[in-house]
Amino acid sequence: MRAVVLAPDSFKGSLSAPEVAEALARGLRRVWPGVQVRSRPMADGGEGTLEAVLAAAGGERRSCQVSDAAGRPLEAAWGLLHQPDGPAAVLEAAQVVGLTLAQAAPVAERSTRGLGEQVRHCLDQGIRRFLIGLGGSASNDGGSGVLAALGVRLTDADGRELTATPAGLAELAQVDFTGLDPRLAEARITLLADVRNPLCGASGATAVFGPQKGVMPDQVTEFDARLRRLADLCDAWRGEPVSQRPGAGAAGGLGYAFQLLGAESRAGAEVVAELAGLDDALHGADWVITGEGRSDGQTPFGKVPGMVARHARRAGVPVTLLSGAVAEADLAALEGEFDGCFAIAPGPLDAAECIARAAPLLADRMAQLARLADVLGKTSTKE
Amino acid sequence: MRAVVLAPDSFKGSLSAPEVAEALARGLRRVWPGVQVRSRPMADGGEGTLEAVLAAAGGERRSCQVSDAAGRPLEAAWGLLHQPDGPAAVLEAAQVVGLTLAQAAPVAERSTRGLGEQVRHCLDQGIRRFLIGLGGSASNDGGSGVLAALGVRLTDADGRELTATPAGLAELAQVDFTGLDPRLAEARITLLADVRNPLCGASGATAVFGPQKGVMPDQVTEFDARLRRLADLCDAWRGEPVSQRPGAGAAGGLGYAFQLLGAESRAGAEVVAELAGLDDALHGADWVITGEGRSDGQTPFGKVPGMVARHARRAGVPVTLLSGAVAEADLAALEGEFDGCFAIAPGPLDAAECIARAAPLLADRMAQLARLADVLGKTSTKE
Repeated sequence: MRAVVLAPDSFKGSLSAPEVAEALARGLRRVWPGVQVRSRPMADGGEGTLEAVLAAAGGERRSCQVSDAAGRPLEAAWGLLHQPDGPAAVLEAAQVVGLTLAQAAPVAERSTRGLGEQVRHCLDQGIRRFLIGLGGSASNDGGSGVLAALGVRLTDADGRELTATPAGLAELAQVDFTGLDPRLAEARITLLADVRNPLCGASGATAVFGPQKGVMPDQVTEFDARLRRLADLCDAWRGEPVSQRPGAGAAGGLGYAFQLLGAESRAGAEVVAELAGLDDALHGADWVITGEGRSDGQTPFGKVPGMVARHARRAGVPVTLLSGAVAEADLAALEGEFDGCFAIAPGPLDAAECIARAAPLLADRMAQLARLADVLGKTSTKE
Repeated sequence: MRAVVLAPDSFKGSLSAPEVAEALARGLRRVWPGVQVRSRPMADGGEGTLEAVLAAAGGERRSCQVSDAAGRPLEAAWGLLHQPDGPAAVLEAAQVVGLTLAQAAPVAERSTRGLGEQVRHCLDQGIRRFLIGLGGSASNDGGSGVLAALGVRLTDADGRELTATPAGLAELAQVDFTGLDPRLAEARITLLADVRNPLCGASGATAVFGPQKGVMPDQVTEFDARLRRLADLCDAWRGEPVSQRPGAGAAGGLGYAFQLLGAESRAGAEVVAELAGLDDALHGADWVITGEGRSDGQTPFGKVPGMVARHARRAGVPVTLLSGAVAEADLAALEGEFDGCFAIAPGPLDAAECIARAAPLLADRMAQLARLADVLGKTSTKE
């Protein structure tokens, strides 16, 4: 009997990673009714991380009320995992300050406070282990909202408390850590990030990711300078240049704030793979299928399919890419990583239809690949 | 070393069958530099048959001046094959009365005379063996043009000669075969058809294929009646109901005219497969790739990929479909015939771009299938 590992990312805007895995399983079973499917939906720390981790690792979906990016109340989901060393909380920045949620306020008025409130809520439950997915955020506050929610005082020259937003930080003169929640000293925080940028400068959060969040070209220098001032004050408290660490620039500086509090920043896809037991699933498997909404030259670097491919190679298992789209121009870069790169379109098809019909198209394409696999065994062994 | 047979149809409106095979070969060689490519471009008797046969079977491209469908001079290609039993001419109706050429005149004014002139030209060269592809014609003259060009007199009640067109046939009263070119008695004519329709009636040439050639709904009955009258006169001369034979209704009745003259009607794809030596190529091959512009529920019946699949199964060689598009709704009907059905689109892509970039897309997709084939040998042999 065949064992096939299904380890896709989500198809953004179309299907969650568990839904992709389910569609692939349907296609496989159509051709191989007895196939052993090992479903390991993946994520990279961005939107969908919570859902993928809960599906792959088990655990409970919880929620609590926090402030959204614009300061309004929001019931935000998080996940409770029961791990051998105790309970762990899986938080996802996108659930609190994600791109779709944050449209209500301009980027200058957006705060990550809600994510800090969620951490406090978990601390209240006795949880000290945190896995925090940073991707997909729409904030650029340097993580000041998280710091404020956890007891750090941000004040102006007259000692008045500021709003923890890019706009509020304009008046920042002092940062006071004396009120920082003492329970954080016992916390172990792992950040799931997909970028290695520092907080400030030309390759920093504002310059690189600000524009896609709505930071206007003429605001970049000023917003970057505000994060620089925040970082100077906080790095001084910490006694080291945390703002220059890789990943400090993730999620508009959320990476920085959590690293200040002792968090470790890791490649999100790798952490999800660990939580989901990807390597165990690969052991003795015959084939791995991975994919994402659109694969391009970035796919081998930090993206889910690239990570899955590395693990599969290490395990000696063939790995095939089946994505919503494969950028033709980048095929040369991609094809070295995978045993075949395929897309779901069965012919000319516009993007809207591809997205709307992704599940049946995935199942159909998977079935065709399985049919091909059925016969090519005879071929390949000849050589 | 692997041996792969490439036996595609043309991608209509985009690439000829030899061009498709060439693109597939490029893709294959990218992954398997030492692969033995057995290129057998196919056709079904329609447009592209001449080119495919010349590419697959060898032979010389010739041309001669004939009348086009509207009666204007046209330099029309034909092919000269050197066969063991002597020279053979490959004619293609689409080269003389094809859909693109015929737009100059309405269907009522179109004649197949030019194709008869081409036959006469070949007879003049001493050729007595004919292979005539009937698909892709835009005529509906019952083959009267061919008959007229070869010496048959079509006259009205007053004995005046008619134009051999649907319009001219309105006045048909008599058919006189006494002037028929006597050299036809020595000729052996094989028709490459992809339909089995009779000449007249509800499943006849006019009712079924007329509308796509421009016969208006209110003309169908009258045009059909004119072919009926033609057939009554000719069948009487022949002494048997040739008009009811399968394939008499091919190409607006060209099938009828040539069958009257003793031609045998065969499945075009099968004849091309013979000429191209498909079965020889399959012998000892590891894999066959076939395809067409668009595959649907009709593909298994009389189309090139269906024919290739049957030959491949008989030879015990895996056969994979790689088409411009695969109709999703018909996948269930298709997937039983092929070891995997694939399309060339690497993601959402409009039809125009798919057509314009068909060659590189084909090569890329072929390369990905080969990469997959490379590893799946290990998988399949486990079972």
